[in-house]
Amino acid sequence: MSVKLKSDNPSVVLQKVGEITFEDRPVPKITKPNYVKIAITNTGLCGSDVHYYETGSCGSFKVEKPMVLGHESSGIIVEVGSDVKTLKAGDRVACEPGIPSRLSHEYKSGNYNLCPEMAFAATPPYDGTLCRYYLLPEDYCVKLPDHVSLEEGALVEPLSVAVHANRLIDVKYGDTMIVFGAGPIGLLTAGVASAFGCNKVLIVDIVQEKLDFAIQNKLATHTFNSKNKSFEQLSSHIKSIWGENNYPTCGADATGNKFCTNMCIRSLAKKGRFVQVGMSGDNVDMFPISSVMERELTVKGSFRYSVDDYKYAVQLLNDKKINVEPLITHRFKFEEAIEAYEFSKLGKSIKIMIEGPKL
Amino acid sequence: MSVKLKSDNPSVVLQKVGEITFEDRPVPKITKPNYVKIAITNTGLCGSDVHYYETGSCGSFKVEKPMVLGHESSGIIVEVGSDVKTLKAGDRVACEPGIPSRLSHEYKSGNYNLCPEMAFAATPPYDGTLCRYYLLPEDYCVKLPDHVSLEEGALVEPLSVAVHANRLIDVKYGDTMIVFGAGPIGLLTAGVASAFGCNKVLIVDIVQEKLDFAIQNKLATHTFNSKNKSFEQLSSHIKSIWGENNYPTCGADATGNKFCTNMCIRSLAKKGRFVQVGMSGDNVDMFPISSVMERELTVKGSFRYSVDDYKYAVQLLNDKKINVEPLITHRFKFEEAIEAYEFSKLGKSIKIMIEGPKL
Amino acid sequence: MSVKLKSDNPSVVLQKVGEITFEDRPVPKITKPNYVKIAITNTGLCGSDVHYYETGSCGSFKVEKPMVLGHESSGIIVEVGSDVKTLKAGDRVACEPGIPSRLSHEYKSGNYNLCPEMAFAATPPYDGTLCRYYLLPEDYCVKLPDHVSLEEGALVEPLSVAVHANRLIDVKYGDTMIVFGAGPIGLLTAGVASAFGCNKVLIVDIVQEKLDFAIQNKLATHTFNSKNKSFEQLSSHIKSIWGENNYPTCGADATGNKFCTNMCIRSLAKKGRFVQVGMSGDNVDMFPISSVMERELTVKGSFRYSVDDYKYAVQLLNDKKINVEPLITHRFKFEEAIEAYEFSKLGKSIKIMIEGPKL
Amino acid sequence: MSVKLKSDNPSVVLQKVGEITFEDRPVPKITKPNYVKIAITNTGLCGSDVHYYETGSCGSFKVEKPMVLGHESSGIIVEVGSDVKTLKAGDRVACEPGIPSRLSHEYKSGNYNLCPEMAFAATPPYDGTLCRYYLLPEDYCVKLPDHVSLEEGALVEPLSVAVHANRLIDVKYGDTMIVFGAGPIGLLTAGVASAFGCNKVLIVDIVQEKLDFAIQNKLATHTFNSKNKSFEQLSSHIKSIWGENNYPTCGADATGNKFCTNMCIRSLAKKGRFVQVGMSGDNVDMFPISSVMERELTVKGSFRYSVDDYKYAVQLLNDKKINVEPLITHRFKFEEAIEAYEFSKLGKSIKIMIEGPKL
Repeated sequence: MSVKLKSDNPSVVLQKVGEITFEDRPVPKITKPNYVKIAITNTGLCGSDVHYYETGSCGSFKVEKPMVLGHESSGIIVEVGSDVKTLKAGDRVACEPGIPSRLSHEYKSGNYNLCPEMAFAATPPYDGTLCRYYLLPEDYCVKLPDHVSLEEGALVEPLSVAVHANRLIDVKYGDTMIVFGAGPIGLLTAGVASAFGCNKVLIVDIVQEKLDFAIQNKLATHTFNSKNKSFEQLSSHIKSIWGENNYPTCGADATGNKFCTNMCIRSLAKKGRFVQVGMSGDNVDMFPISSVMERELTVKGSFRYSVDDYKYAVQLLNDKKINVEPLITHRFKFEEAIEAYEFSKLGKSIKIMIEGPKL
Repeated sequence: MSVKLKSDNPSVVLQKVGEITFEDRPVPKITKPNYVKIAITNTGLCGSDVHYYETGSCGSFKVEKPMVLGHESSGIIVEVGSDVKTLKAGDRVACEPGIPSRLSHEYKSGNYNLCPEMAFAATPPYDGTLCRYYLLPEDYCVKLPDHVSLEEGALVEPLSVAVHANRLIDVKYGDTMIVFGAGPIGLLTAGVASAFGCNKVLIVDIVQEKLDFAIQNKLATHTFNSKNKSFEQLSSHIKSIWGENNYPTCGADATGNKFCTNMCIRSLAKKGRFVQVGMSGDNVDMFPISSVMERELTVKGSFRYSVDDYKYAVQLLNDKKINVEPLITHRFKFEEAIEAYEFSKLGKSIKIMIEGPKL
Repeated sequence: MSVKLKSDNPSVVLQKVGEITFEDRPVPKITKPNYVKIAITNTGLCGSDVHYYETGSCGSFKVEKPMVLGHESSGIIVEVGSDVKTLKAGDRVACEPGIPSRLSHEYKSGNYNLCPEMAFAATPPYDGTLCRYYLLPEDYCVKLPDHVSLEEGALVEPLSVAVHANRLIDVKYGDTMIVFGAGPIGLLTAGVASAFGCNKVLIVDIVQEKLDFAIQNKLATHTFNSKNKSFEQLSSHIKSIWGENNYPTCGADATGNKFCTNMCIRSLAKKGRFVQVGMSGDNVDMFPISSVMERELTVKGSFRYSVDDYKYAVQLLNDKKINVEPLITHRFKFEEAIEAYEFSKLGKSIKIMIEGPKL
Repeated sequence: MSVKLKSDNPSVVLQKVGEITFEDRPVPKITKPNYVKIAITNTGLCGSDVHYYETGSCGSFKVEKPMVLGHESSGIIVEVGSDVKTLKAGDRVACEPGIPSRLSHEYKSGNYNLCPEMAFAATPPYDGTLCRYYLLPEDYCVKLPDHVSLEEGALVEPLSVAVHANRLIDVKYGDTMIVFGAGPIGLLTAGVASAFGCNKVLIVDIVQEKLDFAIQNKLATHTFNSKNKSFEQLSSHIKSIWGENNYPTCGADATGNKFCTNMCIRSLAKKGRFVQVGMSGDNVDMFPISSVMERELTVKGSFRYSVDDYKYAVQLLNDKKINVEPLITHRFKFEEAIEAYEFSKLGKSIKIMIEGPKL
């Protein structure tokens, strides 16, 4: 697919809290031989973007100057640096939005997601991907197979979060999974667990439609609506659907809510593994330490994604092991990006997709 | 060492809350061919024993009928079953006090400490080891080498708790350790970390003498008195003693206190491993979930000990990799067992050792 | 399914090399409370049985007295001991044929397949399963779900060999596999790799029909006929089907042939894992040690099956993750057992199934 | 320690097979901001250097143009690039001689030793370290603590080979080790195993003085002179020194000889781990595959060193966990480098150390 180069670079810029405008930024130039230039075609809207829009900060990051938004993107290569070997103009790619220092010890050790010098798109002070042209190193783009769409390519970002969490606790055939939270990350975490071989995946939320969505799209095998429910009721439910002594071997919390973390961990089988994938505050109360001890559980925290997670995510799409497209409930043109952010505040969408500027 | 068989079996029995008496119980008989009979020579006094004495319960266990106390014991084999091959009368042994079901899935999987049918000494309804004669399967006795004393043999029990916790998070050469709590379990956890190869072990407590004790006996290399200290002060201290970016790779909490768990976890290096080894309540507040996520830490809970931990503990003593004898601060005769329990309430001792009945 | 008890126990007995006869052996009685009595309904014929028949020995085992043959069996429970809780008369089960010592260190460590006191069916001096009634401990029977047939149940034995080999090298989503040998074990090893998540499984043999069989039954995704082919030709083939730098991450040899082991290991990606699952002689020549070093490969040997492998195998059948029935190319009545052994010598079958005595 | 900059760069150059000369090469200039310039003070002589000298090749590498020799070096920083933060002029460092591509997948995955674009000193076509000035990236120099000498610093290279091999098979407290070969790599592999916690390390060679050397310098705890000895004799010896059923849990071969690999692997305990650390030909015969299967052993190959191995090696020296200095049996001035190579051919030395050009 050949894309004509244009001379503008329209960009969606968060000027300050509550104010997003369009700007024509300079077209970036490839200055390092291993970089490629991408015409962004699709960008998913993420909760953190909205958080910056509404509050000016997210976790410890604060917006202190205008910043281009967006970090869940796909696009088409329009130019490649002189050392680039595996990509060429016209290739459709999923864009990994965080570039670590190649010299950091974390990168060298296989954990580049923990690199302290990470330059992450739309995380202050780094500009994001909601623009026409974006530069990335060759190895931070993953080529999309022919039958994987560019929209799916934009969803590779949240899918990689789910892949990373599942790989961190080594989910595989023989495991069973419980996931709290049926938002995009929870749904994808459940779906990846299924794809990685769990024959039983129980998803828990308080919104019945989200649970139904999970089942309809084969992201989970069972559901539990936890509204006004106790741990004992969850435990009985598991017994009723999976039988005696078949507690989940793996668990993930994608809510950041203390009741969810508590119930998720307590529901696990002996030697079970839990991963926290949803962001919450600094501390969580009611952490069930006696369950962790008496059953010798393993508790991990998952942070973004790292080596090969993007590759795994694209492969999952290519293998049709997970169907992510239904998550896109709403679509906006690039020119409607501000409306997209406004709409997202209403909480009516699972995933909003914004098209790139017209090619 | 040959021991003359006697016909009585004096035993220290918790009759009910607050009442311990001496009873002459029937001498147990070997009825299974893989069992041995041991003349108990030494029993360490453990916090759980005292807890039963004072409150009648410990965790979810309740004393509902008279029960012989004691589970940290060593002794001399006096008789062996017909299938016993590796032990003979006269052998000095450390006694592992919990016998799991050989048929349980946990036992079969290499995690017998988690066996739901565990029969554990001095845990209701099972009688303990503060008596003349005690029966054990051959493989739950570990022979003491000549230059390891029977008193050390009794300390193999808490030492195995420390071994298990260290093995669970795979402490080895190249790691550094921080331990909260300088009671017996914290001291031994630090000492085992040293023995396993940590060249830096920082122990934290609010009682200076306990910290000094750790250093004097080479159980730790550094100390921090956390009385009225903040996390930032701990963090600065680590930087001052170990240098920039040398946070501990491993941590253990042996207190069960939420501030300790919080500070211990927050002090760890990226990808660090934490183990909870001290018992606390069901839940702990202030669990630093954002640290666990942002540094991708691993949190585990350790429960008693399992395959080979006793063997490792005896080997540590045999190799003189750890010096446990100084932990014994007070000694009582068997006839003084009740006084021993009374004394322990004062909190003036590290480890109290009670002799077995006169041989 | 209720089965009427009978008073005879017809058995297929290897009297000596080359001589198999039928004998009416005494009906075994349950003498331990955790045992069950099974009416054997199906027994697969294994290469080792044939080996004993033809040569009187297999590996280091020698037939020194008459021995009942057979160890790949399923059946129906007809009686249970007093402690049995999870099985009852009428239950259809897959029978695990090797009973280890519950007291061995190997069993306790989670590796009961390595127990030196293993009593394995049809491995001298232990009688096998080609009879009417067979006794097993409760936990060495795995109940078959309703839609898994008894014939499939008999194939759980070789399927567990494949499960064990795959688990040993931790095959999972993201891996790709190469298997040498398309006999029953090779086919099942490939099929389990597919079921465990490999999206590319290349099976290699010199008989084209076996390769075609693998593809037709979705046990592998690609084939290579290695007849008169060099390693370079294999390597080119992999590149042509999987693309540049996509060497298999996992490999298994199910032939025991030195050329196969050599080529299989050399074909692996850096950090790849290899498992030897086919029996061969004591030593193998041409072991490609420089590949193992330069690519830091891991080489393991797999021995029978251990904790949970049978459970995994039955679950694979229940989940319809693998289709094993087509492997049964020939069926014989119990009364035709001797003909079955004769027929197997011709090498025209994949798996021969012998029915149990008429219920 | 301040070092005056000089304008020459005397270098020891292998011109072709059998011909080494001194050349004054241009002084290299720092062109990348993360590089440092080192005045080389010490270089150990390695078997591969000698191999190039005698044959013009080593493994698949061939000398096709003049090449500076040497890769086991230490030195003093004389200049640092603008981004260098952790080193300064005057710092004494151990020099890691292989620089991988920061962009390779192997580097990113934590396995930079396997990087296909590795530029390794004195491996054609890359020049080595036997010169006055050598450039390295900051993170490929490890600062030597005050009481670690520059001679020890040069030995960090072979010590890291031993560290890597031990880490690859996860040697730690509780393990026991058998090492074949008492040359520099075998001795250091044994010594690192001791330092990592093995309380029993058996070293095997056919030269008694080498074995005595290992014991005298506490690199091993036991020896076996394998001259004209069978496997059965080795096995009996192990039983006699370590007792019944105490076979080594870990093994390493540092000879590349088929008899050694065979005996080493066969001597291991069930579930034991073996690492090949000595280079040999492409294939090895007599590989004991049945032992690997029946005991479910793990066999790995170790290649050079990777993330943190140099750091571990320097820490071992700093902790005085291993004494490497006695390995240096002969010392030569820089001007005597050619004599050093000649002398090495005689096989009378363990390790020859060549001083750098006069500072």
